[in-house]
Amino acid sequence: MSGASRLSLNSATTKKWTLREAVDGCVRAGIGAIGPWRDRVHEAGVPEAAAMIRDAGLEVSSLCRGGFLTAADPTGQAAALEDNRAAVLEAQTLGTRDLYLVVGGLAEGEKDVVAARQRIADRLKKLVPFAHDHGVRLVLEPLHPMYAADRALISTLGQALDLAEPFEPQDVGVAVDTFHVWWDPALRGQIARAGREGRLASYQVCDFNLPIAADALLSRGMMGDGVIDFATITGWVRDAGYTGLIEVEIFNQEIWDADGDETLAIMRQRYEELVLPYA
Amino acid sequence: MSGASRLSLNSATTKKWTLREAVDGCVRAGIGAIGPWRDRVHEAGVPEAAAMIRDAGLEVSSLCRGGFLTAADPTGQAAALEDNRAAVLEAQTLGTRDLYLVVGGLAEGEKDVVAARQRIADRLKKLVPFAHDHGVRLVLEPLHPMYAADRALISTLGQALDLAEPFEPQDVGVAVDTFHVWWDPALRGQIARAGREGRLASYQVCDFNLPIAADALLSRGMMGDGVIDFATITGWVRDAGYTGLIEVEIFNQEIWDADGDETLAIMRQRYEELVLPYA
Repeated sequence: MSGASRLSLNSATTKKWTLREAVDGCVRAGIGAIGPWRDRVHEAGVPEAAAMIRDAGLEVSSLCRGGFLTAADPTGQAAALEDNRAAVLEAQTLGTRDLYLVVGGLAEGEKDVVAARQRIADRLKKLVPFAHDHGVRLVLEPLHPMYAADRALISTLGQALDLAEPFEPQDVGVAVDTFHVWWDPALRGQIARAGREGRLASYQVCDFNLPIAADALLSRGMMGDGVIDFATITGWVRDAGYTGLIEVEIFNQEIWDADGDETLAIMRQRYEELVLPYA
Repeated sequence: MSGASRLSLNSATTKKWTLREAVDGCVRAGIGAIGPWRDRVHEAGVPEAAAMIRDAGLEVSSLCRGGFLTAADPTGQAAALEDNRAAVLEAQTLGTRDLYLVVGGLAEGEKDVVAARQRIADRLKKLVPFAHDHGVRLVLEPLHPMYAADRALISTLGQALDLAEPFEPQDVGVAVDTFHVWWDPALRGQIARAGREGRLASYQVCDFNLPIAADALLSRGMMGDGVIDFATITGWVRDAGYTGLIEVEIFNQEIWDADGDETLAIMRQRYEELVLPYA
């Protein structure tokens, strides 16, 4: 088994790289999969991106991302559904089953968390049949509660599983991203539940750095640089039956400023040391 | 009923004020209670602080704070217990039943969240009999998950109630601080549970400001300045049977730099408008 077995580069980790550069970087680093963001896919062209990745011999672990489903006005709701349908088609063209959804936060000026969460459930009902028809699974990603108001009102894995419940597991799954969920006292039980319910669609790893970055979005760190116990969480994910790809997705200014090939070398080494032995 | 009915100033809100200044400020503003921090109490002297607050006709809503129970080494553990016993005695002298506990995060270099949480449970067992003998209730405060690693590994109200379960409700209660728990999808149910279990010991209000401050500790805001729905959460607390004092505790550089009397005037007005009608 290669040291990079099951490892996938989420393209946000090497933010300054085009998709072409990221694909070539993966090939040079011996990394067999990539999880591209839509902006880099659009830049390359969707069919061209699919061909580029396939021709390089890489798998696509997921597409990042759809979501932002919480608009309160009809125009915003219609625009969100249209954008998510486009994302479903892009995932299909890229040959990945898994489309990440960052579901969105409160609407402008809104404070009613309960109502905003209900809108997520309502929008999913409209989106799931379309995704199903195109063989794409919507992957609900719980985000760290510090992003609840402005990015994602799904804040725990348990809540993601509750929201997924009305739908078939092949249509709506959940993601475990260590950065977002490491603190959750219910994590072990909810990962096991995700496995039992057949919804554990994606596993992303990166660290939680302290102090929290001045721009709180950029506190994601290279595995080993922060507070997360990858052995334990990865073991829980393994015990839940997850055998899929493992993406590394890091938003971090220092890493973005670094040389991409160096980033991939460190990423592969840390993955091999801190994650893979427990996966 | 006065507009400031049940309102209490947590002394951290007017950080630059001595206890004397805070007490006088409350009297001028018609605020009938104060929740002092220990540093300001120590500065004044504990019996002197108790007399000063009593002579001004104010109630003491709580003492902030004990905790930091997660040291992994025997010396650190012994020091933590000693400091918490001192805090219990201070609470007793001040005439408040409620001692807030911010339970502490990971030990230096540690990543084992499960083990650190077990140490909290173990330390509580040692501390509760002492607090009981002095008529003091230990109030477990869940902190926002962004502070889990370095301040408090109690991250949800449900987890706080689980930790409290082995103890009598008069010995170990829980706090609801809107800043820390507003995002929790289980909040409504857990507030109701806290009421049923007789453990709802304290209600603190302040807002969650966006963007998160560069120093993440200072993102607490004046009610109305952030994203929190005080009507809804206050209603849940009321429905759980809470009839106690309501503290305002704000860490915010702009508010700390402002004139204290102005801060108290705004605090009282926002409380009267956004909190009290639902309490």
